[in-house]
Amino acid sequence: MTRRIALRIGYDGTNYAGWQNQDNAVAVQQCVEQALAKLSKVERVPITGASRTDSGVHAMGQVAHFDTETRIPAEKFSFALNTLLPPDIRIQQSWEVDENFHARFSTAGKVYAYTIVNAPHASAMLGRYAAHCPVQLDVEKMNRAAQSIVGVHDFTAFMASGGTSKTFEREMKAAQVCREGSQICFMVWGTGFLYNMVRILAGTLILIGQDKLPEDAFTRAIASKNRLDLGFTAPAQGLTLMRVLYPGDEEKAREIMRQKLLFNV
Amino acid sequence: MTRRIALRIGYDGTNYAGWQNQDNAVAVQQCVEQALAKLSKVERVPITGASRTDSGVHAMGQVAHFDTETRIPAEKFSFALNTLLPPDIRIQQSWEVDENFHARFSTAGKVYAYTIVNAPHASAMLGRYAAHCPVQLDVEKMNRAAQSIVGVHDFTAFMASGGTSKTFEREMKAAQVCREGSQICFMVWGTGFLYNMVRILAGTLILIGQDKLPEDAFTRAIASKNRLDLGFTAPAQGLTLMRVLYPGDEEKAREIMRQKLLFNV
Repeated sequence: MTRRIALRIGYDGTNYAGWQNQDNAVAVQQCVEQALAKLSKVERVPITGASRTDSGVHAMGQVAHFDTETRIPAEKFSFALNTLLPPDIRIQQSWEVDENFHARFSTAGKVYAYTIVNAPHASAMLGRYAAHCPVQLDVEKMNRAAQSIVGVHDFTAFMASGGTSKTFEREMKAAQVCREGSQICFMVWGTGFLYNMVRILAGTLILIGQDKLPEDAFTRAIASKNRLDLGFTAPAQGLTLMRVLYPGDEEKAREIMRQKLLFNV
Repeated sequence: MTRRIALRIGYDGTNYAGWQNQDNAVAVQQCVEQALAKLSKVERVPITGASRTDSGVHAMGQVAHFDTETRIPAEKFSFALNTLLPPDIRIQQSWEVDENFHARFSTAGKVYAYTIVNAPHASAMLGRYAAHCPVQLDVEKMNRAAQSIVGVHDFTAFMASGGTSKTFEREMKAAQVCREGSQICFMVWGTGFLYNMVRILAGTLILIGQDKLPEDAFTRAIASKNRLDLGFTAPAQGLTLMRVLYPGDEEKAREIMRQKLLFNV
């Protein structure tokens, strides 16, 4: 009997070419597929991920699904896979889902965190998961600016070339910028995102925080649809996919936003 | 003219054989000495660290000093050294000190953090800086137990063999165990520590938190001076030297304790 199993996956993206399989580089998807094949004693188990995170981007809550003919209990997959995977990829949970569940097409949204070390020098420890900005940033101003993306907007300007989206309207449910010590964390919860959108939002916020872009830059760019009204694409290492949401997961999203920082979740 | 310079150093200890130079492995001290020699255009600049952190132990605030004949402004050393050091070692600050300042002998104490991921599976991201305990821990009980080490006590039992200390009385100024999400952080501020003492405290707390040792285990071990009344030596990867304190640094120590978690400082 075929069952569909979902996995919640965390990874440190530093040493991977992103989620999606590549020809000449090691991707997270490939590592999980190889572990699954070994466990299932078949040649290949294709898995489908919710989000194609870029090279260097991290995840606390990527979701993927696969179909299996094995009799392994659903909740045991996480434990068995973790014995086969490197420590920088960890399956957080495995559970059986309906045959109609699709990790990507069933999503109701995502929560991302973008972390910035705002201090004269980068951090040896947190630096692995953060961008570094030596110029003092005005977090209050960044937080006010972040509020202007909340709601349903046409985010045509907020996209790098290379995306495959055909519609550009998205809904941001909540956004915030918080500081704790030298750590600044931009968190955003949206029903969907365009290619590189969170990194463009983060790069723009970094410039707003040092008065190199006006506080209403997001509002202007929503109206103009012009990428040039926004800032640079912030580095991949600062971005973490915190959670992929499915219908009914709103309370989980609110809980993550309340934690305010990457590592308090 | 010879000047004495102090450095505040952060490092991710994962890839190093600890702070102190070793014959057949790369130590943090050696990396900083090599960068300093290159910068100073001399063969070797010996540096003295405050704490000989073990292999795999991390630091946010190690302190070291060295003497220099160069004319490089004291505060520029941090920026110049960071261009020569790998990203997992970062000089946070450099400043001139009195010729009588000694990174080790002048210390007034240290603050350590020990981080535990308390969830069924380890964390791919935080796991680099944390031990993993899959059994649910009673943090309130651990925090109550931690209070019993505060004060001046004979910590003879709280020491691994291999230490060089000749006196075993130490003062713990404050200790706490806090939870945020699946992250548990044990923080301790003391005027001095014995060899492996924080890791033995952490291992004991992990056992107290799952009722494998009594809540008064620390009190008993202080009285008995018997290592067997305490728990295992918790893994090096969970330990971070948060700050080396010098006279007058009490407020800084309190500030770190208030942050409660490793990455909120």
